[in-house]
Amino acid sequence: MNKEKPLILISNDDGVTAKGIHELVKILAGLGEIVVMAPDGPRSGASAAITSEIPVRYSKVKEEVNLTVYKCSGTPVDCVKLALFELLPRCPDLVIGGINHGDNSAVNVHYSGTMGVVIEGCLKGVPAIGFSLCDHDADADFAPMLPYVRKITEEVLAHGLPKGTCLNVNAPKASVLHGTRVCRQTDASWGSEWCRGQHPKGGEYFWLTGKFTNNEPDAEESDRWALEHDYVAITPIQIDMTAYGLMDELKTWNLNV
Amino acid sequence: MNKEKPLILISNDDGVTAKGIHELVKILAGLGEIVVMAPDGPRSGASAAITSEIPVRYSKVKEEVNLTVYKCSGTPVDCVKLALFELLPRCPDLVIGGINHGDNSAVNVHYSGTMGVVIEGCLKGVPAIGFSLCDHDADADFAPMLPYVRKITEEVLAHGLPKGTCLNVNAPKASVLHGTRVCRQTDASWGSEWCRGQHPKGGEYFWLTGKFTNNEPDAEESDRWALEHDYVAITPIQIDMTAYGLMDELKTWNLNV
Repeated sequence: MNKEKPLILISNDDGVTAKGIHELVKILAGLGEIVVMAPDGPRSGASAAITSEIPVRYSKVKEEVNLTVYKCSGTPVDCVKLALFELLPRCPDLVIGGINHGDNSAVNVHYSGTMGVVIEGCLKGVPAIGFSLCDHDADADFAPMLPYVRKITEEVLAHGLPKGTCLNVNAPKASVLHGTRVCRQTDASWGSEWCRGQHPKGGEYFWLTGKFTNNEPDAEESDRWALEHDYVAITPIQIDMTAYGLMDELKTWNLNV
Repeated sequence: MNKEKPLILISNDDGVTAKGIHELVKILAGLGEIVVMAPDGPRSGASAAITSEIPVRYSKVKEEVNLTVYKCSGTPVDCVKLALFELLPRCPDLVIGGINHGDNSAVNVHYSGTMGVVIEGCLKGVPAIGFSLCDHDADADFAPMLPYVRKITEEVLAHGLPKGTCLNVNAPKASVLHGTRVCRQTDASWGSEWCRGQHPKGGEYFWLTGKFTNNEPDAEESDRWALEHDYVAITPIQIDMTAYGLMDELKTWNLNV
């Protein structure tokens, strides 16, 4: 066989110096040619945001055999768009976001910059996976999940993913994992979301925080259930957000003027 | 009847001074008590981003009968979260994003700060609608779509929306509209996304731009088809992004270590 090595584009939302992205690069070594284009600082909660009001820049951080690392002033999605436009010699075989420091399961998928990376890859027609560990610590222990990261990546390289779909993979903070479970997105909600403080020059400021509530803790097919029972949760995600089930009802409404 | 007036929370991603949000407030006058909490400047392309690294602040801009306007230093989603936490006396009856200066149909739903507002309202269990006009001009003519904005808002106030669903409403740039169509999200893609420039101090910078391609221009049920034929496109959106159709196949993969 004379097949080209797989080309793998990696980004994240914790920034190019985060432990999680280094662990990801290390565990994927040997699977192909890896290009990292990651934000030059933290972009947690960046969702699928794009930079529209100002220009962005990028620069090379390092170059090794089968690994080139760049940093970019933009959002996680900007990183993917700019790498595809500017850096890669061809369409990559895989786009990977992560490994995120923090949980991106359940409704968190909407806020996640890691999943922004993945959704952008998917929108570009490239198989894409987001990996996250439910531990915000800068020195979080990624070791238990790393064999799963490698295995899931190998499987996606082998099988591909159907057009318009991608994977959101989350691992619990646990030293022993019981395996993987294929899940659906959990119905959950955030409350008590702000912490109030007094600005030294007067007036109040608000830091985002919040209390996460799982609205269906007993749902065994949900990703939060898997995580709470020490499984790696694999949630397939689709970029078509249409609520098809609502279309017929809306057509009965009086929506004209 | 002694029913309370509907409480309507409005935000956007073009900022509190944009024409679109003013037109929205004007056309909804009389439907209830309106509270605006909008970004203090443009946040186009903010998606569902949240501000996690720095605190946010807000201040009152003006207060009239049935209308109070605030501006906030955060993202569109921050605006919704902070208004719910800090400003509103009760859960609102409706969250509305817009009217956006620019198209949020098709895959643009993922990048849209306007739809970030709407998805956040939906995540909080509040019926939510995003309104957008396919015209980026700061002085865009919203007049043709305004009667539809009023009518659709009245219908959602009357019917509610099923849990986990919201509406993405886009109007074409046209002086005569042919009515509304209930649609699904169009399969489309962005290419040629960056415009290169030379930084005065050396090196290159990149501005995000791009060419939009509709991958299914003949699909009559798609939102882009409606817009291209001068209809107002109403696309129901769901916050559960699970690709249910992929779950069974994934379960056949070898995903354990």
